[in-house]
Amino acid sequence: MSLLVVGSIAYDSVKTPFGKKDEVLGGSALYCGLAASFFVPVNLVSVVGEDFSKRYLNFLRKRNIDTEGLQIKKGKTFRWKAEYSHNLNNRRTLATHLNVLRDFKPELPKNYKDSKYIFLANLDPYMQQMVLDKLSNPKLVACDTMSLWIETKRDSLMKLLKRVEIFIINESEARELTAEPNLIKAGHKICNLGPKMVILKKGENGALLLSKSFKFLSVAYPLEAVYDPTGSGDVFAGGFMGYLAKQNKLTKSCFKKALIYGTILASFNVESFSIERLKRLNRKDIDKRYKELRRLTHF
Amino acid sequence: MSLLVVGSIAYDSVKTPFGKKDEVLGGSALYCGLAASFFVPVNLVSVVGEDFSKRYLNFLRKRNIDTEGLQIKKGKTFRWKAEYSHNLNNRRTLATHLNVLRDFKPELPKNYKDSKYIFLANLDPYMQQMVLDKLSNPKLVACDTMSLWIETKRDSLMKLLKRVEIFIINESEARELTAEPNLIKAGHKICNLGPKMVILKKGENGALLLSKSFKFLSVAYPLEAVYDPTGSGDVFAGGFMGYLAKQNKLTKSCFKKALIYGTILASFNVESFSIERLKRLNRKDIDKRYKELRRLTHF
Repeated sequence: MSLLVVGSIAYDSVKTPFGKKDEVLGGSALYCGLAASFFVPVNLVSVVGEDFSKRYLNFLRKRNIDTEGLQIKKGKTFRWKAEYSHNLNNRRTLATHLNVLRDFKPELPKNYKDSKYIFLANLDPYMQQMVLDKLSNPKLVACDTMSLWIETKRDSLMKLLKRVEIFIINESEARELTAEPNLIKAGHKICNLGPKMVILKKGENGALLLSKSFKFLSVAYPLEAVYDPTGSGDVFAGGFMGYLAKQNKLTKSCFKKALIYGTILASFNVESFSIERLKRLNRKDIDKRYKELRRLTHF
Repeated sequence: MSLLVVGSIAYDSVKTPFGKKDEVLGGSALYCGLAASFFVPVNLVSVVGEDFSKRYLNFLRKRNIDTEGLQIKKGKTFRWKAEYSHNLNNRRTLATHLNVLRDFKPELPKNYKDSKYIFLANLDPYMQQMVLDKLSNPKLVACDTMSLWIETKRDSLMKLLKRVEIFIINESEARELTAEPNLIKAGHKICNLGPKMVILKKGENGALLLSKSFKFLSVAYPLEAVYDPTGSGDVFAGGFMGYLAKQNKLTKSCFKKALIYGTILASFNVESFSIERLKRLNRKDIDKRYKELRRLTHF
């Protein structure tokens, strides 16, 4: 199985207490696709400008990431600039230049239309639905969102939620969406909005998977050095969906393991700026940390 | 084995978004002792005033909590008043009346002096050391503290830390004590101050056990209804130390299970005000939730 990933590609400028990087590779689809590519071939649907480096296109192709659905448009690639607080738990967006992303209309190459596993990374929920309209027979659709859409495109987001199986969001967004401070209750409220399953990401405090029939919890992998959290939510989703697409089975056991693989992939991502750590990563590293997380939590 | 618990007993007045209770039973030693009593006999060293209800003394004795070391002094029992924020994550102390706790000098009845398992609940670190001076041959001493002592009795706390095996504290206190925002690094720094092991409590986000030779992590048991977090840290410590004293073995496996029992006991405590939930609790409930936590986290 392959995974279809739809979302943004960006040049990010990021400052954390541990350094500063300008115009480095980022974007929700890029982070997610790269993480999923450790498990399955990825079909990437996104948009970049004419300034997007050919070197990066080649890098993606070498990583088993198909770029036929990647539009190269006249204009500049999406830019995003942010700064993290002392403890990395708060982030301030300093600039968002949508550029070619402003008029993005996701198009699916013919051979993507029968995709079975789909991740709709953070985008305007209207665009996310445009993708669903083009799919012939999806098996498992997961999506992400952000506060901006909860606040400005709530109706569209609600329509989207009725059409996806899994909703993957931050705990703060879940609380905002449902106006419910208790995370478990917030999760159940979300399940009543449409998705069969919700995954609540808690950053350094792990993640919680919730459906009507079962719950599963993961700690975050404990790290002494976190350099840059950018993209970790998308990397988490990529690990989760990539593992599921690879197994092509939707059992409880697969969902649990997928949550752990998402956790592990995210733990690598925060160890460097941009995609630097993922570039150096291999499947052996991933499986080693997976086993270690078992030792750290089983009793 | 029995567990020696030294700390405060209080009449608490607590307001949370879910209710308000005045002059209810509380205090670090009381919460901890009650939790530990599900595993082993507890010897309680604390102080109350003449206003302390005989009914409560009888209740403790019925629970296998020995009160020979509980001083009844002229004056009023320690009072504490606090209010919790909307999401229960922040708490404001509204009043602290030390009363008989102000001049508390912990005394150990003769048959407590050879105690093997000891928990020094939150108290002035000088008082905590007074207890250690009176012990003939302790096997495992754990202690707790609070921001107040980190800020006002740092030297005394540092001396105490050289004399205990396990330090059990909140993540925010660990960061304050070590001036280190990364929790794992903060934990290692604490181990360099004396304790062989540190347990970092993260409230609704679980707990982390750290020693030079191993790490173990627990999620918190997921709850839809949290009424009052008061005393949960002490209940956690009571479950942890009670289980260890019962096993009387200091293996990795025992420490892991003890951390889970601490987690489980704390999860019950927050379900009601004061000790209401612990009063209704039995060992079967505890073991059921223990097994459930395994199902919720093992993969």
